[in-house]
Amino acid sequence: MPETIPADSVGLVKPRVLRFDQPLRLSSGSVLPSYELVYETYGELNNNKSNAILICHALSSNHHVAGYHSMEDRKPGWWENVVGPGKVIDTNKFFVACCNNLGGCFGSTGPASINPATGKPYGPDFPIITVRDWVESQARLADALGIDKWAAVAGGSLGGMQVLQWAVDYPERLAHAIIIAAAPKLTAQNIAFNEVARQSIRTDPDFHDGRYYEHGTEPRRGLRIARMLGHITYLSDDIMREKFGRDLRNGKIDFDYDVEFQVESYLRYQADSFVGKFDANTYLLMTKALDYFDPAEKTGGDLTAAFKSARTNFFVVSFTSDWRFAPERSREIVKALHDNDLNVSYAEIKSTQGHDAFLMKIPYYLDIFKAYMERIERYAENNSGKGR
Amino acid sequence: MPETIPADSVGLVKPRVLRFDQPLRLSSGSVLPSYELVYETYGELNNNKSNAILICHALSSNHHVAGYHSMEDRKPGWWENVVGPGKVIDTNKFFVACCNNLGGCFGSTGPASINPATGKPYGPDFPIITVRDWVESQARLADALGIDKWAAVAGGSLGGMQVLQWAVDYPERLAHAIIIAAAPKLTAQNIAFNEVARQSIRTDPDFHDGRYYEHGTEPRRGLRIARMLGHITYLSDDIMREKFGRDLRNGKIDFDYDVEFQVESYLRYQADSFVGKFDANTYLLMTKALDYFDPAEKTGGDLTAAFKSARTNFFVVSFTSDWRFAPERSREIVKALHDNDLNVSYAEIKSTQGHDAFLMKIPYYLDIFKAYMERIERYAENNSGKGR
Repeated sequence: MPETIPADSVGLVKPRVLRFDQPLRLSSGSVLPSYELVYETYGELNNNKSNAILICHALSSNHHVAGYHSMEDRKPGWWENVVGPGKVIDTNKFFVACCNNLGGCFGSTGPASINPATGKPYGPDFPIITVRDWVESQARLADALGIDKWAAVAGGSLGGMQVLQWAVDYPERLAHAIIIAAAPKLTAQNIAFNEVARQSIRTDPDFHDGRYYEHGTEPRRGLRIARMLGHITYLSDDIMREKFGRDLRNGKIDFDYDVEFQVESYLRYQADSFVGKFDANTYLLMTKALDYFDPAEKTGGDLTAAFKSARTNFFVVSFTSDWRFAPERSREIVKALHDNDLNVSYAEIKSTQGHDAFLMKIPYYLDIFKAYMERIERYAENNSGKGR
Repeated sequence: MPETIPADSVGLVKPRVLRFDQPLRLSSGSVLPSYELVYETYGELNNNKSNAILICHALSSNHHVAGYHSMEDRKPGWWENVVGPGKVIDTNKFFVACCNNLGGCFGSTGPASINPATGKPYGPDFPIITVRDWVESQARLADALGIDKWAAVAGGSLGGMQVLQWAVDYPERLAHAIIIAAAPKLTAQNIAFNEVARQSIRTDPDFHDGRYYEHGTEPRRGLRIARMLGHITYLSDDIMREKFGRDLRNGKIDFDYDVEFQVESYLRYQADSFVGKFDANTYLLMTKALDYFDPAEKTGGDLTAAFKSARTNFFVVSFTSDWRFAPERSREIVKALHDNDLNVSYAEIKSTQGHDAFLMKIPYYLDIFKAYMERIERYAENNSGKGR
C-alpha cells in the first residue's frame, strides 16, 4: 500500500468497460459476435483529440498501465516508470489509453468469459486471436473514444509488435510508432520456449482440454512452469549473476530438493504469485499470437515490402542484454523502415537487465524516450486546434 | 539397424558390471554401503597400462560410448563420431573405458535400484551424488581395472566437469585432461533452467514424492517438459534457425494447438522418445550434481587456487555458439590453469551447433582433437614398457 500516492503518479484510477456488438471477423476466419474491452485512460483529451496515445501491453500484463486502483494497492500499474504527470509519457500533456487485449483475463472478453452460445465459459472454444485482431479491436476502441488519429501508439515486447501492426494496417491513424524491445517475428528458439510453456500447461492433468473452469480446477502446475521459464527469458544472464549469483538461501548446501540457491527462490516466488492471477488459456492464446506474428508473411518474407503502406514516424528501442528480442531483431525493423524512406529514430540502450529493461528506470533510456516524446508533444500542440 | 557395422566402429560391444562392497562416503555425508557400476571398454590395454582413457558422460547419456549392442541397434553409442578404430580416440591404440555414473539409470546403482535396507526401490532415499563422488567411484573402477594412471580422462559438458575434478582430486592419476564444452561452475541462469526442469518433474502428480516406482507410475509429463527445455539449451539460436526457421509442418497456420511449426515437432519428438528411457529421479540427481559443481568452493571462489594441486596437461575446447557453457566459461578455466603454470592447449571452435557441437562431426574440431590425441598416443607409447 502506498502510504501516500506519489505526486508524479496518475493516482487512483478506475478501469472502464466498453461493449462491442458489431461482430469481429478474426484472422483465423472465426467471428466473435460481440465482446467487451476493459480499458483505462489517464490525462485529458484536447479539443482536436490530437494528444491521444495508445499503449499496447505485453504477454502477461493488462490495461492497468499506471496509478493505483485503491489505497490498498501494493503496486502501481506496470509502466508507472514511464507514464504519469511530468514523466516520459506526460499525462499533463497527453491523453493515454490502454485496453486489456481481447482474449485476456483482466476484464476483456476471453477464454474465461461466458460463451453466450452455451452459457458456459468459452475455454478452448475461444478463438485464437492474432496481433492483427488486437489492432482491429483497438481501432474500434479508438472509434468509440472518438479518436481518429493517435499522436502515438506505443508498446514494448508483444506490445511493440502491435505497434508495428498498427503502422501497417492503419497508416493514417497514428502519427508516431514507438516500438520497444520487439522483433519483426519470432525465431525458432522463441517459438520453442513458447511451445514448452504451452506443453507444460496443456499436459497438466488439471487442464481438462481447456475446460478446467467447469471442473473447478486450474492447471496451476503447468502455468507455474510456464511462468518460471518466461522469467528466465526476461532476464539476462548478467543481471541474474548480479542479482543472485550462486548465493545460497541458507548459506550452505543442504543436499535436498528444497530451495537452495537464491535464483530458485526467486523463480518459485514469481511463479507462485502468477498462478491464481492469470488464466492459463489466456497464456496459451498470447503465446500463439506471438508465434503467428509476422507482418512480412503476406509479402513472402520481405519486411521492406511489408512496411510499404506505413506513413508513420518511428521510434525504435532495443537493449543490449535482451536475448529474447536482441538488438539485431530491432535493427531488422529499422532497416526495413529505412528502405521505405521512413523517419526512424533508433536507440540501442546499454543495459544489463535483459528483456525486462523496457519496464525499468534506466536513465539513458528514459532520457532519450522523453526527448522523442517532446517531439510528439509538439505534434499534439500544433494540431490541438488552439489559436485557430 | 546398421546393415553392416562400419569398419571404423568398435562394432558389437557388451557392457559389464562391477560390484563394489567397500562403503562409499559421499560429499553429502551419506554412505552408500555397496553399489554396482556398469561400464564398457574398447581396445586393448597395453602391458604397462599406459594407454587407458577414461571417458566421463554428460547429463542424459551413459557408458555406451561407441559401437552397437546388437545388430538390431538403430544407433551407435553417443560418441561414435570420436571413438573407434582410426578415429580421434583411436581404439587401435587406446584402451577406452566409460561407466554409467552412480545414480544413473542404465545399469549402475541409482534411484530405481533396490535399496537393500528396504527391499524397495531407493527413489528419493537415494543420496544426492556430486561430481566429486563420481570421480571417487571412477577411481575405484580404475583400481578394479588395474589402472594406476589414465593416459587421459576426457569428457564434454558435465563430463568435462568430472575431468576437472579428476585433475584436482587425483593429480597423479591422469597424464592428460580433456575438457570440452564445460564450465568451472554453473551460472544463475544455468541453475534456473535446471530448477524449472526439476519443478516440472517434482510437481507432476505422478511423481509421488519420488516413489513413483511403487505406484506403477512415472512423471512422464514432467520429464517430457524437462527434456524439451534441455534441448533448447543444447542448440543455438542459429542452428535452430538453420534447421527449422519458421517452417510450418503442414505448410499453413491451423489456428490450433497441434504441432504447427517444425521446431515444435522436433521438441515433442525428442521429449517423447526420452520418456520411458530415462529415470526422472536420475534426471533430478544429475541436475543437482551440475548445480553443486564448483571446484573453487573450498578456495573461497578462487579458481586459480583450486587448481593448485593439478599436475596434468590440459586440452580445453569450447564452441562459439554454445550459450549453455559459452567460450567465456572455458576461458575462465584456461586462465586459472595458466596461472598455475600448467600446460594448456585451448581451442575455440567456430560452429553454429550450440552446446551439442561436442558430439558432432565438425572437421576442424575433430582435426585439432586428433592432433592432441597424437600427443597422448606418444605418451602411451613411451610408457608402454615395450623395449625395456
